[in-house]
Amino acid sequence: MEEKKIPYKIYLKEDEIPRQWYNVRADMKKKPAPLVDPDTMKPITLDKLSQVFCRELAEQELDDTTPYIDIPEELIDFYKMYRPAPLVRAYCLEKELGTPAKIYYKFEGNNTSGSHKLNSAIAQAYYAKQQGLKGVTTETGAGQWGTALSMACSYFGLDCKVFMVKVSYEQKPHRREVMRTYGASVTPSPSMTTEVGRKIFEEHPGTGGSLGCAISEAVEAAMTSGGEYRYVLGSVLNQVLLHQTIIGLETKAALDKYGVKPDIIIGCAGGGSNLGGLISPFVGEMLRGEADYRIIAVEPASCPSLTRGKYVYDFCDTGKICPMAKMYTLGSGFIPSSSHAGGLRYHGMSSTLSELYDQGLMEARSVEQTSVFAAAVQFARVEGILPAPESSHAIRVAIDEAMKCKKTGEEKTIVFGLTGTGYFDMFAYERFNNGQMSDYIPTDEEIAKFAATLPEQPEL
Amino acid sequence: MEEKKIPYKIYLKEDEIPRQWYNVRADMKKKPAPLVDPDTMKPITLDKLSQVFCRELAEQELDDTTPYIDIPEELIDFYKMYRPAPLVRAYCLEKELGTPAKIYYKFEGNNTSGSHKLNSAIAQAYYAKQQGLKGVTTETGAGQWGTALSMACSYFGLDCKVFMVKVSYEQKPHRREVMRTYGASVTPSPSMTTEVGRKIFEEHPGTGGSLGCAISEAVEAAMTSGGEYRYVLGSVLNQVLLHQTIIGLETKAALDKYGVKPDIIIGCAGGGSNLGGLISPFVGEMLRGEADYRIIAVEPASCPSLTRGKYVYDFCDTGKICPMAKMYTLGSGFIPSSSHAGGLRYHGMSSTLSELYDQGLMEARSVEQTSVFAAAVQFARVEGILPAPESSHAIRVAIDEAMKCKKTGEEKTIVFGLTGTGYFDMFAYERFNNGQMSDYIPTDEEIAKFAATLPEQPEL
Repeated sequence: MEEKKIPYKIYLKEDEIPRQWYNVRADMKKKPAPLVDPDTMKPITLDKLSQVFCRELAEQELDDTTPYIDIPEELIDFYKMYRPAPLVRAYCLEKELGTPAKIYYKFEGNNTSGSHKLNSAIAQAYYAKQQGLKGVTTETGAGQWGTALSMACSYFGLDCKVFMVKVSYEQKPHRREVMRTYGASVTPSPSMTTEVGRKIFEEHPGTGGSLGCAISEAVEAAMTSGGEYRYVLGSVLNQVLLHQTIIGLETKAALDKYGVKPDIIIGCAGGGSNLGGLISPFVGEMLRGEADYRIIAVEPASCPSLTRGKYVYDFCDTGKICPMAKMYTLGSGFIPSSSHAGGLRYHGMSSTLSELYDQGLMEARSVEQTSVFAAAVQFARVEGILPAPESSHAIRVAIDEAMKCKKTGEEKTIVFGLTGTGYFDMFAYERFNNGQMSDYIPTDEEIAKFAATLPEQPEL
Repeated sequence: MEEKKIPYKIYLKEDEIPRQWYNVRADMKKKPAPLVDPDTMKPITLDKLSQVFCRELAEQELDDTTPYIDIPEELIDFYKMYRPAPLVRAYCLEKELGTPAKIYYKFEGNNTSGSHKLNSAIAQAYYAKQQGLKGVTTETGAGQWGTALSMACSYFGLDCKVFMVKVSYEQKPHRREVMRTYGASVTPSPSMTTEVGRKIFEEHPGTGGSLGCAISEAVEAAMTSGGEYRYVLGSVLNQVLLHQTIIGLETKAALDKYGVKPDIIIGCAGGGSNLGGLISPFVGEMLRGEADYRIIAVEPASCPSLTRGKYVYDFCDTGKICPMAKMYTLGSGFIPSSSHAGGLRYHGMSSTLSELYDQGLMEARSVEQTSVFAAAVQFARVEGILPAPESSHAIRVAIDEAMKCKKTGEEKTIVFGLTGTGYFDMFAYERFNNGQMSDYIPTDEEIAKFAATLPEQPEL
């Protein structure tokens, strides 16, 4: 049977942008474990959560029964500036590999933030604006999330305070300038503008900062703003996965248009925002018994939360300020080796994805970074897009699966998420190009050391 | 009369990618002056030109009678990876400005080279491959053209030798690494690999290099390759403008689809590759008496070839190796002030565009760089794309024209070319964000000094 001629890029029309996000938790019989308030060790209340997040976002965070949630019209207008994102048929990669597999990727890099992060940044900025806030605070490491949030705040006229890990602030001046160009104030962390920053400066005068410290400063800046600011996060949370389902919904709509049913769906996984967004609609079908897919989460071997972590309650942030979540985690003190260049450094995994993994609805695979960059370069040279190191984890496994098909002759359909571009990651590429990149896999002792720091578990 | 609802982004379908380039010279009654061989001071012959360029490209260079030239099928396949490029209706910018004008921009930045340069790079690589060459050589300053050529050569399995101005090689390591990732060899110029490089090193031991020197090295590397390499250029030439007409043809097709007729068409102009490509199909209509448009070329006040240059024969390269062209020029020794950050540094202008300008079919305007960056930031914040400094020259004038409409109440339709993204130009943005950017306009004496170095004119 001849398949319908598939173009290189499938673009949905503007009026086919999804009008509702899909909340996969509504279709889960066994729900993800609730967020826990570290003060009471009980499930967190909406009121308590609303002190940290905007009210509407706190509601989305806790809602595990409503399957579809309307996307506000103002957000649709913004989405129209860079969405629908193309679903690309990787004809050139298929040819390069000589595989009978059919490879597709959903490309989220065609916007100035360079990644899918903008999908949730704009939603969070919108609800902050609706609530009458003056602005939001956040932390950023490499700068991808900070950039997305800066763009979103600029659009809605919100103030945006970004605490950027000092060493990144100095080593990645370009990302910093993109944020400043969008009107954000970018402060190297630790800074003298917060109590926690001053304290860390006193204790560690020459420190280059850490994500944990930047989070603490961002939270303090919001909490001491007299209610004018809230703190926002770019991954891990249920609300973020919800916003990111626009990726999966568009992917499914584009595939349906051509009558294509994927066999394997692959995504990179740090905190889980992209993977969760990509797979939710497909997992929904699985949960409702309508279809079956193989779903593969790909994580770095140097930060292997799903493949080597424990499924327990842990703190979401190194500063232990945010609510606790049950998730696959390496321990909130875990930091990947300094040789790690590929992103996806988060110590835990979204509690929704963790639960899906625990229920056997998803596989996980860890890959080493030199093989990830090799896949990135192979992909870039034939598909014309220089991928982000994070995204390249998914490329690696997509290529591996396509090569298996070459051996077996199977014409499987593989879909993967290409979360973004690597234009601000050229130092990492340089290390790879110069043969200076090495792999690092934590020893069992190291994994055990951090696992030993896991907090006392709530009794629910 | 209600206009047809225009989406934010007009995407043509893949099978609507133009199958032929349009050669505007065929419709010009008075043709652009021919290229002149500096050895004979007579129009250059095809055979002579074929020693520098691939045969097919040399033919395209000299052909001023064939209106449409087929785009090879292999190129169409490559174009499908990143084309058709969107024509964007700038709804958000219109709202920000409060103008009754309708603003559209053709966005060429959605590919890893970050600009329209890829349109011609891939064509030149294709013909080099067809001719059985081993590779090509070129020079690059900031790296935009070098990146595009690296991608194109990688796709066709050609070797790519890029001579990159030493100071840029050191100050822009990111662009350099993108090229290396695509398999190009990138040599800082001057280098010890060529005779001319060694000579310059002897004379100026600490030099940071110049575009003129890099061109000379690239040409020498091609000429001493035993015929295995040719030298290629990214702008100015008729062949390049021809390949870039895919921009204008797509723009016109997208506008026609919605029955939109532009009043003003605006493009930035360095050597003229983007502007020529954008306006050719529209100028064709003007030449055939079918329509009338206002066309505006925008150049930097610090490098004002159209607005302050002379229309005479000059060398196309600082090294005086390439054929001479009649064009608006400031003199081949002209170099913009070191404070100039906005690209478009070429001393002359495509001879086709020069002739159109001389015939009054096109206006020219020069703008100062601080106003260009102000327009860039204003645009970025509402349209979500961080523009290249070069492209922002067109944004500046598009905004100016839209603000005139606001005063007069005219609902003019403005189309401009957004040639690319500014992700590798953050140092320039940083200077602007920090208020450290200044304007520089050459004095009449400086202009006269370089004009005095113009070569003896051929008698044709």
